[in-house]
Amino acid sequence: MTTAISPTTQELGEYPPGQDPLPSWNEGSAKRSIINFVRGVTTTGDAHFVKPEERIAVFDNDGTLWSEMPAYFQAAFVIDRLKALAPQHPEWKDKPLYSAALQGDMKTVAAGGLRGVMELVAITHAGMTTDEFAKIVEEWITTARHPKFNRPYTDLIYQPMLELLIYLRANGFKTFIVSGGGVEFMRVWADKVYGIPPEQVIGSSIVTKFEMLAGVPVLTRQPELNFMDDNVGKPVAINLHVGRRPIVACGNSDGDLQMLQWTAAGTGLRFGLLVRHTDSVREYAYDVSPLGRLDKALAEAGTKGWTVVDMKQDWKRVYPFETGK
Amino acid sequence: MTTAISPTTQELGEYPPGQDPLPSWNEGSAKRSIINFVRGVTTTGDAHFVKPEERIAVFDNDGTLWSEMPAYFQAAFVIDRLKALAPQHPEWKDKPLYSAALQGDMKTVAAGGLRGVMELVAITHAGMTTDEFAKIVEEWITTARHPKFNRPYTDLIYQPMLELLIYLRANGFKTFIVSGGGVEFMRVWADKVYGIPPEQVIGSSIVTKFEMLAGVPVLTRQPELNFMDDNVGKPVAINLHVGRRPIVACGNSDGDLQMLQWTAAGTGLRFGLLVRHTDSVREYAYDVSPLGRLDKALAEAGTKGWTVVDMKQDWKRVYPFETGK
Repeated sequence: MTTAISPTTQELGEYPPGQDPLPSWNEGSAKRSIINFVRGVTTTGDAHFVKPEERIAVFDNDGTLWSEMPAYFQAAFVIDRLKALAPQHPEWKDKPLYSAALQGDMKTVAAGGLRGVMELVAITHAGMTTDEFAKIVEEWITTARHPKFNRPYTDLIYQPMLELLIYLRANGFKTFIVSGGGVEFMRVWADKVYGIPPEQVIGSSIVTKFEMLAGVPVLTRQPELNFMDDNVGKPVAINLHVGRRPIVACGNSDGDLQMLQWTAAGTGLRFGLLVRHTDSVREYAYDVSPLGRLDKALAEAGTKGWTVVDMKQDWKRVYPFETGK
Repeated sequence: MTTAISPTTQELGEYPPGQDPLPSWNEGSAKRSIINFVRGVTTTGDAHFVKPEERIAVFDNDGTLWSEMPAYFQAAFVIDRLKALAPQHPEWKDKPLYSAALQGDMKTVAAGGLRGVMELVAITHAGMTTDEFAKIVEEWITTARHPKFNRPYTDLIYQPMLELLIYLRANGFKTFIVSGGGVEFMRVWADKVYGIPPEQVIGSSIVTKFEMLAGVPVLTRQPELNFMDDNVGKPVAINLHVGRRPIVACGNSDGDLQMLQWTAAGTGLRFGLLVRHTDSVREYAYDVSPLGRLDKALAEAGTKGWTVVDMKQDWKRVYPFETGK
């Protein structure tokens, strides 16, 4: 249960000068709630103390650790891959789904439903070995540019959330990504960008198959969904991959609700956080994204005492490349 | 590729007196190959040096880290659970599969094939929440006794392999279990017994489902196989859960062959190990177990240069409770 902050820690939202662990966070209730929580679970003798090995923190990725507008960044990868493959597939011109995707018309693609999206994912994500796919992602992530900011997508991570990851790890936490994004898409760059190693990245996956190609064992990627790591899938995946219930869960949409519920329902002090996109100038302002909403989780945050981060108010800096103000 | 040991390390199979990292291993080629490998990949400047974060070691469990005779220990759990549930199921008496299992007649059970085994697994492993199942396993593992040794099953771990786990971790390795056994069965005790935390235990699994029971979020265990972590499934699971290729793989049967092949096929120095059960006095002597064989992996060990451990010759002590000789 998420319970009231312990009396022994509730007034501790301060830190020695020059030692602010979250310098890109403005002073306020969100920042204070993080610091109070961490002090509570890490202070020996505190009623809320949690052993280091049980300090598991899970983070959604799209919209929580990096931006997700104007579309999930992995969708941009899909479109760029389709464009690269199109010359070998002249027949795509006559297929509405493909021609819409090639023109970046995401509305038409989305209108085709999950089946259409999965078909595009299959054609761009399958039919190669895992090693080959990793190379394709590596090349894309280092060369592709975000349409609004004209920067690599990995520049568009949230500096305050990066500080939160580092702060938690400095306090004995193990940090995990639990994302609807593709696990083998994220692993290529997550360690470099967030300091989260491959074995702590959980995501959606397609089927892979062990095969011998000319005497060499490979894993080939099949055009078939293995697991969708969203909504009810998130607690299922956490249980399968981590095998412990987290004490911290951070998300930004209703797709993260079950992960927050599952985390909050454990015994002892728990911390839930929702990032709310309120900054149309520095980032984007929306509670409804192309593929997600935030109404149910936001309503439950109120009753459960989860921390709602108002990006515009709570973040001094959004991206690492900005100068703090 | 598994290549010849580097010239700079091939004569290094010694250690200062009193600092033997593997005291339950007899001197010989198996012990020497382990120590040479670890020195090669951990010595800065050595041609085979591997960065700590890439030092991934995977271990099969049944027959590799603990005994698997006269049947997989999890099979004993299944039978004990069936016995506990039988009073509520008088109809089982008329079902050959169930009555065979209740009498411990594993031959008849095995003759029923995988479908029969899965039915028994479903009835004993599903129909409760993940928390409830963990409690059932916890109670069983602390009270059940092995028929030959009359000791808790967790006493029947191999002391030399425990030393290998500890030695690897002391040298910066992350150790994982990759077993055909049930992941939620092993996680209950693997940390206490092997020092391997839940998030580093990979195994077979059944489907779990996120549900709200009286307003409380739970994961309920369904009578349906999710993933069989054996044979070709092992490299698939390693890729899905770890996302890095191991540099050490240890097994004891053909069910581990693909995991060893996948590990050995990476670039740089790799270490493959097969435990061979040759000790009918202290443990058991067999190359063919009720559910597995060792002929293909053994043949490939010869050509690939994997280390074959002859339990009778190579191990000074098999179980922790024995006195060394």
